[in-house]
Amino acid sequence: MGPVILTVTPNPAYDVTYDVSALVPGTVHRVTRVHRRPGGKGVNVAAVLAALGTEVVATGLADAEFAAATERIGIPTAFVPALPSVRATLAVVDERHTTSLWEPGLAPADPAAAVADLLARVEELLPDTSCLVVSGSLPPGVPPSLPAELARRAIAGGVPVIVDTSGEALRLASSVPGVVLVPNSEELSGLSGPAGPVDTVEQATAATRVLVERGARAVFATRGADGIVVTTRDGSWSVPAPRTVAGNPTGAGDAVAAAVARGLASGLGGEAIARDAVALGAAAVAAPYAGSVDPGLFEELRGRVGSRPS
Amino acid sequence: MGPVILTVTPNPAYDVTYDVSALVPGTVHRVTRVHRRPGGKGVNVAAVLAALGTEVVATGLADAEFAAATERIGIPTAFVPALPSVRATLAVVDERHTTSLWEPGLAPADPAAAVADLLARVEELLPDTSCLVVSGSLPPGVPPSLPAELARRAIAGGVPVIVDTSGEALRLASSVPGVVLVPNSEELSGLSGPAGPVDTVEQATAATRVLVERGARAVFATRGADGIVVTTRDGSWSVPAPRTVAGNPTGAGDAVAAAVARGLASGLGGEAIARDAVALGAAAVAAPYAGSVDPGLFEELRGRVGSRPS
Repeated sequence: MGPVILTVTPNPAYDVTYDVSALVPGTVHRVTRVHRRPGGKGVNVAAVLAALGTEVVATGLADAEFAAATERIGIPTAFVPALPSVRATLAVVDERHTTSLWEPGLAPADPAAAVADLLARVEELLPDTSCLVVSGSLPPGVPPSLPAELARRAIAGGVPVIVDTSGEALRLASSVPGVVLVPNSEELSGLSGPAGPVDTVEQATAATRVLVERGARAVFATRGADGIVVTTRDGSWSVPAPRTVAGNPTGAGDAVAAAVARGLASGLGGEAIARDAVALGAAAVAAPYAGSVDPGLFEELRGRVGSRPS
Repeated sequence: MGPVILTVTPNPAYDVTYDVSALVPGTVHRVTRVHRRPGGKGVNVAAVLAALGTEVVATGLADAEFAAATERIGIPTAFVPALPSVRATLAVVDERHTTSLWEPGLAPADPAAAVADLLARVEELLPDTSCLVVSGSLPPGVPPSLPAELARRAIAGGVPVIVDTSGEALRLASSVPGVVLVPNSEELSGLSGPAGPVDTVEQATAATRVLVERGARAVFATRGADGIVVTTRDGSWSVPAPRTVAGNPTGAGDAVAAAVARGLASGLGGEAIARDAVALGAAAVAAPYAGSVDPGLFEELRGRVGSRPS
C-alpha cells in the first residue's frame, strides 16, 4: 500500500434523511423514504476522496457496526471501537424545507483509554499517511486538546495535517506550528481575534494572515458562494466560486477539506489547491448528500475556476 | 415454565423520542435528550405485562439486534430474525407539541419464508401459551391474512387470541370465529359496516354486537377518555374512564390489550376484564412512554372503575 490520506472522525454520526410531504409540528407523518449513511465530517471527507479514486482510510472513535457500515460504502476503516453506539444526525426534507435534528454524541465508556487508543492508532498509521485530516466535533468526555495533539504528532512525523473543528478544540489546534486550517467565516472571525467581520476578501485575507503569522502553514477561508481566500507563507489569493450551483450546501466544507488533503498529499501550492477546493466544494453542493460528489462535474468546474492575488 | 402470554409483532419498531426546545421547520436543532426503546404494538403489550409481573414472551419478525435490545429491557423473546433491519418511529417532543415521524417497515428478504417461519414458531409455542396477542401493522410483502391465520391456529389449539391490527388484516381477522377484538372507534366503525358513527355508548354497543353476532368471542371498543364498551355472548357493558388522566395517550391501546390478555388468560368475564382494561389504559396514559406503566397507579385506578350494562 502506498501512502494514503487518513481522516480522523472523533464523533461520527449516521446521516439519516427522511422524506416527508410536509413537516407540520404536532402531527403524525409517514416517512416516504429513509436514507441512512455513515457520516460525520471526516467520514464525509473520506467518501469524497473515495469517489475521486484517491486512496483513503477513515479512523476515529466509533463502534463495530459503524465501521462495518462505512466499509460497505467503499471506505477502508481503522476505527477505534470505543463508543457505546454512534449517534444520528437527521435531516427531514419536505418540498419547502430541510429541518435538521442532531443527536448528541455519546461518551466513550473510558474516555482516557479511547483517546490513548486513537493516538496510538494514528501513530501506527502515520508512516503510510500522505496527509492527516482531523474533522468535526468531539464526543462528551474527550478533551478539546485531542485535535491539537494529533496535529503535533503528524507534523513531528513529517505528515501534513488539516484540522477542521470548532470552538476551543479549533483554538488549541490553530496554534500548532505547521497546521493547515479550513475555517468558515464564523470560525475565522472567532480565531483571528477581535478583528471583527471577515465578510470582504480584504477582511478575510487579513484574518488568514494573522493565523499564518502565528504559525499555520496555510489557511483556506471558506466563504460559501463567495469561494475561498487562502493565505500561505508565499502569499494570499482569492478564488471566487465558478457560478451559483443549486443544491445542498451540507458537506461542501468536507469536500473543500478533501481537495486540500489531495493537494497537500501531491505537493501542490496553496493557490492551485484553493482552485481545486472551490471546484470540488461547488461539485459537492450539486450532489444529493454530504460525502457524495460527481467526479465529472468536478473536472468540468475545475476548468472554470480562476484566482487572483488578494 | 407455566403457560405464558405470547405477543406477536410482525412489524416492530424502535420507539425513539427526541427532546428539543422548539421544533421549527427549516432550522437546525440540537437534540437535548434521546430515548430509544424497542417497541411496536406487541412489544409494548409485552412490556406492560412484564411491568405487572405477568409472564410473557414476545415473538414476531425482527433482527438479532432488536431481539437482544428487547431482552435487555426484561422481555423474553422468540423473534424470527427475518427483517433486514428494524425501522424507527420517532417522536420529536417540544414544550408545545409531539411531532411523529414513522419510518416505513422493511420487507423480509423472503416474505413467504418469513411467514412460514413465524407460523411454525407460534405453533411450537402454543402448548405453553395462555393467550395469544397479535398486534400492529405488517411489513411490506407480508399478506394481510397473517393475523387471521394466527388467530385460527390459536383457536384450534384452545388458546384465546386477541387481534389488534387495522385495515384489510383486521377485516380478515374479525371474521375468525372466536377471535377477541380491541378496536378503536375508527376501526370499529370500519368493521361494523355501513352503521355510521360509533360516538355514543349506544352506537358503540350496537357496533360491537354486530361483530359478536358474526362470531367474535368478545369485542372491547376502546373510546379514549370515554372508556370502553364491551360485548360478549353474555351481554354488553360500558366502563367509563375513572377520571381524566393527563399524559401521553400513545400506548394506551396496547395497555388495554395487555389487560384483556391477562383477563382471558385468567378466565375472567368480559365485564371484569373491561374494568381492568380501563384502569390499565388510564395508568398507561400517565406513564412517560408507550409500554411503560406504574403498577401502583393501576391498582389505585382499578378500585375506582365501575361498569353498567349498555
